Amino acid sequence: MSGPSSEVSAVPEGVALAFDEDLLAAMDFHKDADGLVPAVVQDAVDGTVLTVAYMDAEALRRTLASGRTWFYSRSRREYWQKGETSGDRQYVREVRMDCDGDALVVLVDQHGRGACHTGARTCFYRTIGTGPGVPAP
Amino acid sequence: MSGPSSEVSAVPEGVALAFDEDLLAAMDFHKDADGLVPAVVQDAVDGTVLTVAYMDAEALRRTLASGRTWFYSRSRREYWQKGETSGDRQYVREVRMDCDGDALVVLVDQHGRGACHTGARTCFYRTIGTGPGVPAP
Repeated sequence: MSGPSSEVSAVPEGVALAFDEDLLAAMDFHKDADGLVPAVVQDAVDGTVLTVAYMDAEALRRTLASGRTWFYSRSRREYWQKGETSGDRQYVREVRMDCDGDALVVLVDQHGRGACHTGARTCFYRTIGTGPGVPAP
Repeated sequence: MSGPSSEVSAVPEGVALAFDEDLLAAMDFHKDADGLVPAVVQDAVDGTVLTVAYMDAEALRRTLASGRTWFYSRSRREYWQKGETSGDRQYVREVRMDCDGDALVVLVDQHGRGACHTGARTCFYRTIGTGPGVPAP
């Protein structure tokens, strides 16, 4: 409300998550040489997989502390917060870890146009192949 | 129907997917030194993220050809087909690729107990943190 410009104050800040220190410590970031794990960002409302990006321990800590997604870019070798340039912010509702502690699911409220840098809602807008799933008996 | 044992014939075979050769060729498997991309396996019915595993070009080709998920194990350095040991098979309905061609979403019908080696339906059964998402105005 008291931000330096109306553009900044027009979008809400994130809220820090309540989190479990023991589970956080159980994450295994170093299976990968770069200390990164894939983070599957999923729409909290309808379950659409929006994007896959990468987090190290620091990106996860920043995500939990800010209530908005932070990632580590493998190509640029730097941290980035989703939406800081585009305005297409992701507010976090839940962070889940997998059985081996080497992957994350992040449930978000997606603001703005969507998650993809192309302007699409999801990065997964192209279908390579389709099939029947379980065939009819 | 004419399988060598009733145990084998009790579960249906997969059906090959129809797929787009041009999109398949647009996948960029070599951003990662190992030639692998993360494959997010999602329940085709309710959208639950079941597991994250890895595919190279060959694992994806086998998945499209068999209609069941094939992955590459980073630790064992070998191909494996989900459910071949456990019986918890994944029949593929759709394979989607992301904007950069370096991640996949695989929509499946999950048979058996579930996707996780622990017996859980999803590998993401633990919640590290929770928050409100977009805070109330």
